[in-house]
Formats: sequence, C-alpha cells, structure tokens
Amino acid sequence: MSRARPSWPSRPQPAAPTTDRSLVPIGMATILPQTAQRIRLIEDRVLRTLALWGYQEIIPPTFEYLDVLQAGLESDLIEKSFKFPDRATGRILLLRPDVTAQIARIVAMGMIPDRPPLRLSYRTTVFRYEPQHAGREQETFQVGAELIGADDVATDSEMIALMIDCLSELGLPSFRISLGHVGFFKGLLSESGLSRDGQKLAEQATARKDLPGLEALLIRERVSKKRARAILDAPGLYGGEEVLRRGRRLAGRSRPLRTALDRLAAVYGVLCAAGMQDRLVLDLGEFRGFDYYDGIVFDIFADGIGCELGGGGRYNHLIGRFGRDLPSTGFAFDVDRLFRAMERIASPSSLTAVDLVVTGPTRRADRVFQAARRLRDAGVRVLQGRAVSDLRSAQRTAVDEARRVRANGVVLVGLSGQREDEALVLTIVSDKTVSRSVMKLKDVPDAPWRARRRLP
Amino acid sequence: MSRARPSWPSRPQPAAPTTDRSLVPIGMATILPQTAQRIRLIEDRVLRTLALWGYQEIIPPTFEYLDVLQAGLESDLIEKSFKFPDRATGRILLLRPDVTAQIARIVAMGMIPDRPPLRLSYRTTVFRYEPQHAGREQETFQVGAELIGADDVATDSEMIALMIDCLSELGLPSFRISLGHVGFFKGLLSESGLSRDGQKLAEQATARKDLPGLEALLIRERVSKKRARAILDAPGLYGGEEVLRRGRRLAGRSRPLRTALDRLAAVYGVLCAAGMQDRLVLDLGEFRGFDYYDGIVFDIFADGIGCELGGGGRYNHLIGRFGRDLPSTGFAFDVDRLFRAMERIASPSSLTAVDLVVTGPTRRADRVFQAARRLRDAGVRVLQGRAVSDLRSAQRTAVDEARRVRANGVVLVGLSGQREDEALVLTIVSDKTVSRSVMKLKDVPDAPWRARRRLP
Repeated sequence: MSRARPSWPSRPQPAAPTTDRSLVPIGMATILPQTAQRIRLIEDRVLRTLALWGYQEIIPPTFEYLDVLQAGLESDLIEKSFKFPDRATGRILLLRPDVTAQIARIVAMGMIPDRPPLRLSYRTTVFRYEPQHAGREQETFQVGAELIGADDVATDSEMIALMIDCLSELGLPSFRISLGHVGFFKGLLSESGLSRDGQKLAEQATARKDLPGLEALLIRERVSKKRARAILDAPGLYGGEEVLRRGRRLAGRSRPLRTALDRLAAVYGVLCAAGMQDRLVLDLGEFRGFDYYDGIVFDIFADGIGCELGGGGRYNHLIGRFGRDLPSTGFAFDVDRLFRAMERIASPSSLTAVDLVVTGPTRRADRVFQAARRLRDAGVRVLQGRAVSDLRSAQRTAVDEARRVRANGVVLVGLSGQREDEALVLTIVSDKTVSRSVMKLKDVPDAPWRARRRLP
Repeated sequence: MSRARPSWPSRPQPAAPTTDRSLVPIGMATILPQTAQRIRLIEDRVLRTLALWGYQEIIPPTFEYLDVLQAGLESDLIEKSFKFPDRATGRILLLRPDVTAQIARIVAMGMIPDRPPLRLSYRTTVFRYEPQHAGREQETFQVGAELIGADDVATDSEMIALMIDCLSELGLPSFRISLGHVGFFKGLLSESGLSRDGQKLAEQATARKDLPGLEALLIRERVSKKRARAILDAPGLYGGEEVLRRGRRLAGRSRPLRTALDRLAAVYGVLCAAGMQDRLVLDLGEFRGFDYYDGIVFDIFADGIGCELGGGGRYNHLIGRFGRDLPSTGFAFDVDRLFRAMERIASPSSLTAVDLVVTGPTRRADRVFQAARRLRDAGVRVLQGRAVSDLRSAQRTAVDEARRVRANGVVLVGLSGQREDEALVLTIVSDKTVSRSVMKLKDVPDAPWRARRRLP
C-alpha cells in the first residue's frame, strides 16, 4: 500500500554533478556497497517477519499497460508516471508508479489460484517523475503487504500489529503509528453541504494540512458555522482514547460518522489489549494519500524524520475497479526513509565486507582454495589474496590488502615447512601492529582475530 | 557479466491471452508466490556465497542516459533496449539492458571510493525487447559478480571457482563450465587474411554455431586452405587437457595464439589443482556473447536445459571506454534459467507459506497476539485466523483455514476454562483426520505437528 509522497528534506546522497552535462539521470542514484548492505538488511528482516505472519511474496512486472492499470491510479499519479509506447502494440506502457494498484489488477484477473483471504508481500521499486528532487527520489524501494478478501476488525488490527512487529524487528526505537478512519472526515464533508468539487478540494487542502485554504473554501461555499467548526476541528483531534469521545461529540447522530468511529474504537481496543497502546496515536484528521482508501488508515512516524516512513489502510473498492470486488487492506514501508531512520541509531562503519584474507604461494593454489573453503564453511567471509612466490613480500602484500578491505587479519597456507593442517595467522591489531601466530586451520574461525575486530 | 541470449524453448509460464486485447505486456509475467519464493531462495544463496568470498552488493539505477551508457553497449543491444525521452532534459533514457556496462560506467566515474581491486556483486533485472518470447523474457533476473582492477591467473580462476561454489551451494547436481579464451579464435581470424568486416562476420557466424556460413565466408574471402581448416576446426576443440595440446598444434608459432593458450592452461591448472576438474570442459570455440570480452570466457550448462544458465569472462578494456582503464572479469547467472534447472530436482509443493493457524475468541485478541508472537519468536510461521465467539464453529473455521493455506495445524488459545499458558492444538493428520491435544504453549513449537507435515 503506497502513499502519496510529501516533499521532504534533501537526501544524504549527493546529486549528480549539474555544472556540466549530468552523467546519470537525476533522482536515480547508484546505491553503493555500505548503503546497499543496509537496505538489503532492512528488506530481508521485514520480509522474514512478513513470512512469519504467513505473507507470501509476489513479484509484479515492472511495466503495465496504461489503459489497464489506470483504473486503479489517480490522475496526478498517472501524470508522474514514466510512459512510453510499446513497440509491439503501440499502446502506452508505464513503469509501476504504485504496487497496490498492480496487485489489485493481478488479483482481479484471477491470477492467484488460492481462495481469499490472500496474504501477499512484495519488495520492489516504484517509479515517479519528481523533477525537484535529487538522490533516488524517482526510483524508490518499497516493501509491503496486502491482506485481500476480508473486511473486519481482526484484519484491520492484524495489519497494524504486523507493521509494528516489522519495525520492532528492525530495532527502530522510537516510532508511532497515527491511526484514523477516512470515513470520519469524508462523512463530515459530505454532510456539510459542500459541492462535490468542494469536497474534493477540501480533502486536498486537508491532505496538505492547509487549514487557511480549507477555511476559505468553507466560507466560499457558505457552509454553516457549526459544520465548518467541526471540519476545521477534526485535523486537531489526535491523541489517546479521549479523541474517540471528542469525535463522538462532533459526530452527533450521524450514522456514517458513528460507524467510522465504532470501527476505529474496536481496532484501537484490540491493539491496546495486545499491548501496543504506547505505539498508537489516534488521529481523526488522518487523511492523506491515495483516494482508494475507504476505511481505517495509518502512517508511521519516527523521531527526527520529518515525513512518514510508510503507512497504509483499507481499500475495499480498489480491486472492484478491475472487475472483482474484494475488500482489502495493506501497507508499505518506504525503504529509503527507513534506512535514514535506522542510520541515526546504527554505526555504518560496523559493516565490513571481509573477515580474513587467505593467501599462499602461487604453486600451492590448491591449499589456498581448500583453506578458503573451510573457513567459508564456518561462515567466515574470506577474500583470496594475490598469490606471491616470496614469503616475505607475500606477508606484506596480504596485510596491505587486508587493511584496504578492512579485514581483521591474514591467513597464510601452503608455506614451505608448514604442516598440511597448519596456518600462519597475522592479526591486525592496530594501524601499526600485526600479531603473528601459528595454529591449526580448524581453529582459525574461533581465533582471537574475532575479538580484535577494530573499531572505526 | 551478462551474455547475449540465444533463443530458447517456450517458458513454463503461460503467455498473456492473445485472443483479446492483452491485459499485461507480453514478456512481463507476474511471478506468483511459489515461484517467487524459490527465485528469492536462489538469489539469497548466491549472494550469501558471494559475500563469503568478499563481494559487496551494489544497486545500480534502473535508468541510464543512452548517450553515456552507449560507450559500453553493442549496437544490437541498444536496438533491443527500452528507450524514451527524459522529460527534464529531452535526452534519451534507456532501461538497463546490461549490468556490466553499467557497473563499468559507475567505476569509471570514480563513484566507489575504495582502491581496486574491487569485488562487487549485484541482484537486479535487465530489460530487453524480445518480440518473439512470452513468459518473462523482456525482464530477466540476474545475479552476478565483477572483480575489477586485476589481470592475472588468480583472478581468472577465482571467478570460475566462485561460480562453481555458488552452483554447488544451490545444490544443482550436474553442471559443467565450458572454458575458453577469445584470444585464440580472434587470433586465428586476424592471422587468416580476412578483412575487418569478414572477421566480424566470422565471429558472428561462430557465435551462432553456423559452420556452413563460416565456411562460405572463408571461401568467399579466399582464405588459404590451411588457415581455413584451422578456423573451422577450432569450434570442435572441446574436452579435457588434450584440447590444449591440439590447440598448440593449430597455434604453431603464433605469439597471440600461444599467449591465449598459456593463460588458459594456467587457469585450468589452478582449478584442477583445487579439485574442480570434473566441472570443466575446455572449449577453444567458446566465443559467444558481447564483444567486450577479451580474455578467458566461460559458460554454464546443466542437464536438460538447452541453453546456458549464465557465464562471463574477462573484459580488460570495457571500463576504459568510459575513461578509466581497469582490467576486469565477472559473471552473471540467469536466475530464471537457474530456477528451471532447479525445478527439475526439487519439489515445489514442499514450499508452504504457513505452519500453524492461531486463533481464539474475539474478546481474547490479546491472548491470540501473545501466543502468535511467542510462536513466531520460535521461528514458526503463524497465520492469525478469523476470531469467532463460539468454540465449536471456531474450531471448524480454523481447521478449514489451515487446510486452505496448507498449514499443519491449529492452535486455540483464550478458551474458557483454559489456563493462561495452555493451548488446544489440532494437528491435521490427513484430509479427514484431525488429532486434538492440550499442551503448554511453550511446547507447541516442538509438538508432533512438525513430524506430521503432510506430503503433497
């Protein structure tokens, strides 16, 4: 479930040079090893958690036909999509701008043989033309889940509990989920006497948090003072359980508003009973993102990141736009933003690529391969160093190579006078000191080089 | 390192319907859960092996500017690329048709701060317009490695040993690596008196294994009988060590041919010493794929798959085309084909999504969440079932749900009269039989449902 992207602060990655002709398209940065390692770690942990909840990964294609997918896309998202004609048919192809619409299309086509409810997950990129942003804004990583074919409090709660579990597994210490129901605010608008266009404009103003604009609109369309007050108050209704009471006062006897509040209260109740109260903020103004949401909606926020890390909600009528009505809910994480939130708490320099460099004389390549294999079987990351015939230079070359790749030491095998099962281990203690020891190869994985892992 | 794709038999996946307007672009199939699970397993195992050898993942962007990347692409690959104008600049963007060229561009730009040699890996898709193929031919998954900044026997050998290690980790039982050196055949051609164009045509005919076409060309260009014989014999030179002897006879005193054979012999020697002889087939006609190869080249074949599963080779001058000369080597696996090769040996039905369904009365959602979390912490994949108030119907609903998702059993908690740490476990023994037992929740992860895992 993807959400519209608000603007956000500049990225940690440098933009491509703009003084001369740019060598790479703006907003399409290459992700270098240290960052890639952490992005994959985030993806893997989230997908592992989703698998533990019974969610199965699906891999949608990168392209879709515009004339098919547009049923699930808002016009401004189509506007932002990368589009080009298909050589074979002349029809317009677009690069996936939203995964949820794609999965809705796939499910509506009956491509998944299992009976609903379906629990699906995905890890992919979405493409959106964002002219003002550098970094990788035009190609963003998403990991998400969809629960398709059920409409009840249990599945609404499951989605939020699942999201909280993923974030806890990632080790993100301080995050909050804002929880609302689009039916509440939509109900207020539809009962206000606003025109259809006025309702749409009011939704957009609220999504932008543009309260002065909203107020001007209500005056222009002559909405009664009492109803205008309720509409302007709603975005301020956030906090704990008391929000529900205040919401009920605003709702009065309105059936749609009470129904929305009842569902919200029930989901909140289940999540509190399950011990997640501290993570939740009720928000009756929660009303952002795509217009296919029509029930419980939620967003994730964390300290120090000025935009949501992900979110989602219930979309009971999206799949129906593709021809098969199935109530559903889902969420997505913005992996780039999760990465930024995690970056604040973990040291990137703790990620190294190599534990040990293994080498030996050229003529004993067999011994080097065997030793390296043995160490890798024990889970040690081994780089096979340059083979050198002279022992003295071999040591120096290997230690230099180990330093270059930030490895912890060097293992030399196949040396003359050395026994078959022996190794000379050079542990890098500091920038200037290397300690030497001869040991059995089988003892190398547990040798002191592990303990002497250097600090950044 | 990607290779040109020969045509190959039709795919297991159904093509999109062609009777009516197709709903999905041809060659862009959705990958459904059971297949996705195995594709990710292949990717993860290969990347884990690559990490154990010190290779670090890099994530290149999906788009490139044509005017930049074309320095590393052959014209027929540019022809096959998906291209469209960039809205911001009017320049032509193309979707990545080859990863190696992209990484060459990234390294030449100096984006990677480490000193060479660099060991990089990637997992990504490449996009090529393939009008005749259905399935997912236009968007293929690749996992690969590049070793940049070294030109010696050790790195040539490392690349092939690494590839063999990846395939062994995947559990692929019967595969062979064909090993050659493009310098041998190119040398024969350049010494034959063929024109430049003739040499290029001869290379293309050989890559297509079109020997009659090759012979006609040699006659047309009046190549001497002796030299024509050598050129026509080379593609037949494959097998064990004797191939090197026969190659030396063809080479005579030619320096370039002997140099190529010497390198090939040295690499073969190292790999044999390291115990990999049984996996190797020397092939002096090995001459396919991109024209950026200029040294040792190799391809992977497996029983029952009529095309290579991957391959690669040395490209000492590709990065130089982007402005920084660095000798390099690399390989890529075609993940779709690896999947097909693996499919022959593993049962897809052994992959289930869920181990147990956990449920309980609606009012005890807290107990259900707690029990589910406890099981997941023990690595059990748990689906939270629909909560039902009546115990009898709860059991039936939960067992039905467990059968639907092919789980092994049901855990009921929060029942009246049940102790806090107790669970009622229903193990699905067969299509008709369910066994009941009451046990402590902490014992559930090791309970008999594991042993009674149903057969397909």
